[in-house]
Amino acid sequence: MDTKIAIIGFGTVGSGVAEVFYKNRPAIERKAGARLDVKYIVDIKSLEGTPYAEKWTKDFQQVVDDPEVGVVVETIGGVMPAYDFSKRALRAGKHVVTSNKELVATHGAELLRIAEEHNVNYLFEASVGGGIPLIHPLYQCLGAGDITEVAGILNGTTNFIMTRMFEDQMSFEEALKLAQKNGYAEANPAADVEGKDACRKICILSSIVYGKHVYPDEVHTEGITKITLNDVQAASAAGYAVRLIGRVKKEKSGLIAMVSPALVAKSSQLGNVSDVFNAVLVRGSDLGDVLFYGRGAGKSPTASAVLSDVVDAVREGGHIPTLGWEDANHDTIGDYLDDVTGVMVRVPARDAKAAGELFGAKRMVSPAPEGEAAFLTGMLSGRMVQELCAKAGKAGIEVLSALRVLDY
Amino acid sequence: MDTKIAIIGFGTVGSGVAEVFYKNRPAIERKAGARLDVKYIVDIKSLEGTPYAEKWTKDFQQVVDDPEVGVVVETIGGVMPAYDFSKRALRAGKHVVTSNKELVATHGAELLRIAEEHNVNYLFEASVGGGIPLIHPLYQCLGAGDITEVAGILNGTTNFIMTRMFEDQMSFEEALKLAQKNGYAEANPAADVEGKDACRKICILSSIVYGKHVYPDEVHTEGITKITLNDVQAASAAGYAVRLIGRVKKEKSGLIAMVSPALVAKSSQLGNVSDVFNAVLVRGSDLGDVLFYGRGAGKSPTASAVLSDVVDAVREGGHIPTLGWEDANHDTIGDYLDDVTGVMVRVPARDAKAAGELFGAKRMVSPAPEGEAAFLTGMLSGRMVQELCAKAGKAGIEVLSALRVLDY
Repeated sequence: MDTKIAIIGFGTVGSGVAEVFYKNRPAIERKAGARLDVKYIVDIKSLEGTPYAEKWTKDFQQVVDDPEVGVVVETIGGVMPAYDFSKRALRAGKHVVTSNKELVATHGAELLRIAEEHNVNYLFEASVGGGIPLIHPLYQCLGAGDITEVAGILNGTTNFIMTRMFEDQMSFEEALKLAQKNGYAEANPAADVEGKDACRKICILSSIVYGKHVYPDEVHTEGITKITLNDVQAASAAGYAVRLIGRVKKEKSGLIAMVSPALVAKSSQLGNVSDVFNAVLVRGSDLGDVLFYGRGAGKSPTASAVLSDVVDAVREGGHIPTLGWEDANHDTIGDYLDDVTGVMVRVPARDAKAAGELFGAKRMVSPAPEGEAAFLTGMLSGRMVQELCAKAGKAGIEVLSALRVLDY
Repeated sequence: MDTKIAIIGFGTVGSGVAEVFYKNRPAIERKAGARLDVKYIVDIKSLEGTPYAEKWTKDFQQVVDDPEVGVVVETIGGVMPAYDFSKRALRAGKHVVTSNKELVATHGAELLRIAEEHNVNYLFEASVGGGIPLIHPLYQCLGAGDITEVAGILNGTTNFIMTRMFEDQMSFEEALKLAQKNGYAEANPAADVEGKDACRKICILSSIVYGKHVYPDEVHTEGITKITLNDVQAASAAGYAVRLIGRVKKEKSGLIAMVSPALVAKSSQLGNVSDVFNAVLVRGSDLGDVLFYGRGAGKSPTASAVLSDVVDAVREGGHIPTLGWEDANHDTIGDYLDDVTGVMVRVPARDAKAAGELFGAKRMVSPAPEGEAAFLTGMLSGRMVQELCAKAGKAGIEVLSALRVLDY
């Protein structure tokens, strides 16, 4: 059997897919049980001077019309025109494989439905966690378990910044500059440091685990831009690292999902994830805790994940019935203020006693940053923390920060 | 579609499979796309007084002869009679799902071949790493990558012992007693502490990754019985934890596989795996490092893994072409003495200078245990270490221990 592949978008990931494919072609064909080749590479820019010059076309319709093309690899990124191209490819009976988290988080339910209607697959292993197998284990290998919670370090850029603040006592601004210098952060780092990238990824994980589309606008998202070196130092003195955590959990009242900086124990698996690495913890009632860890981005790991989906698509042939979720009306997730966690509160030293009484300090952090006090509270809902902060304001108590403490 | 399951062997895992199945039945049936029920439970002992009394039979032939039975769950353990039962079930066209690492490590190639001949599956996700998805990602999700190395903490009992020695300064004997008291070690702990259990597991991982059956007798296996508290303390002073590591890697000369205690950096992912947890690191040339972590044993996680295989078997229907490996003549693995690593050497303080010169000390460990010296060497083959130890003996230098240092 012969299957042709078309790669749409020849940036970092797209070119990585071509490179890794031709490097490992015999192994990939053996796994897929089919002969494979890249027939088209679609991009606005010409591929003149690359080994792929004769595969280049600007015209996506050529791909759609070619019955030899069985798999379209969409590595354009962003919603448009990727959304339009993906629909056209699926409707033409071609599998679509993507690394495009924004598109999956925004239109996944619809694209999965179109794929099912045309008995093909829409696969996106590479959209979360780069080369780490995550999506596939979640819809298949963990088939028997009742998953109660998923939590992860889903963005390498912010994790690099948090790690440098923690290990090298850099300020947020210094760490961000270093990340940009190393190529880990974009010139405009907003999507990363404001948590939007992590939000898209937790939306995808939530949708696949709980079977209903979770949209980015439903997920309360806080970035790391307000985290100061004093937060990181106080956390460290208390035995914690600060990490940007995307998480979703099943509560009696429904699903709670959130992206926010939070304290995780240094000795925990998540607390030990450094620099640009990603990790996702899956907690199941029977399974216990399972953690998946690896490089969450980068050309080769991401290309590797894309190609494992290409193998899967070709091997399966038709639609995989366990993969998919229902659409929903932006109402899958409950109120994030119902979430109950421990909290670390930082205040000026003069307010230590009053703030400790107000919040119910369970343990003082020692040493606190100079001129400050910090303490850990018992379990508090987000709503309660808001109320206590408002009360503190009225009583003239200055709350410098109040960060969630998570138990992983 | 209706499929009946037979559970063979009603010990910890077998009874866990029944419990988790009836607890999560709707979700399991939805994932499998079929109605499922447990029709038989085969055991020597009667199930009188359990909720499963009317499913009980002593007669395995009844299962073989019943065309309604589509999946046989073999949770007997050990080679006989599990080997015989598994062959009979496969030859009767039934899928076999097992948690039996000894059987897979000893007769996996043959059982996989029989499964293929009868267009059914022989699945064993639960044989390595309990509930951690490992086997499935290795033969499927990591389809595109060229895996250069697999290394893991594969045995919870020994990891518990090593952790207690490290964290609580217990002796090996004390830590073993505590493990037995907590139910983590058997009255006869030989298979665990001598590394046999880890050996079976690395055989299974090696076979699946490299496509040829690796037999336990090919894999050089050292247990942890010779590890002393001084080893653990010296390692800790140098920044390392001692762990029992099963590993296999692709070298130009062929495959090297081994089970042995080794030093791994405390700050590494493997060095941070404590108590009864397991973790497996997969290193790929494109993929980078991916780590899978979780509870490597226990009733519910293992049952959960067995049931995910049941789902897979029913969903797939026929034989999965990417799952399997060739038989081999106990000649897949090369000489373990060719393996090159750093080494930590411990000697009495009086021999520090002479031993350091002989082995080429790169870094002294400080503080060393009382009355001793310890140092880290450069990269040395196992053969070179043997020769240097022999030379030391002739020169009157006492080598207290020489432990591998691994770079994960």
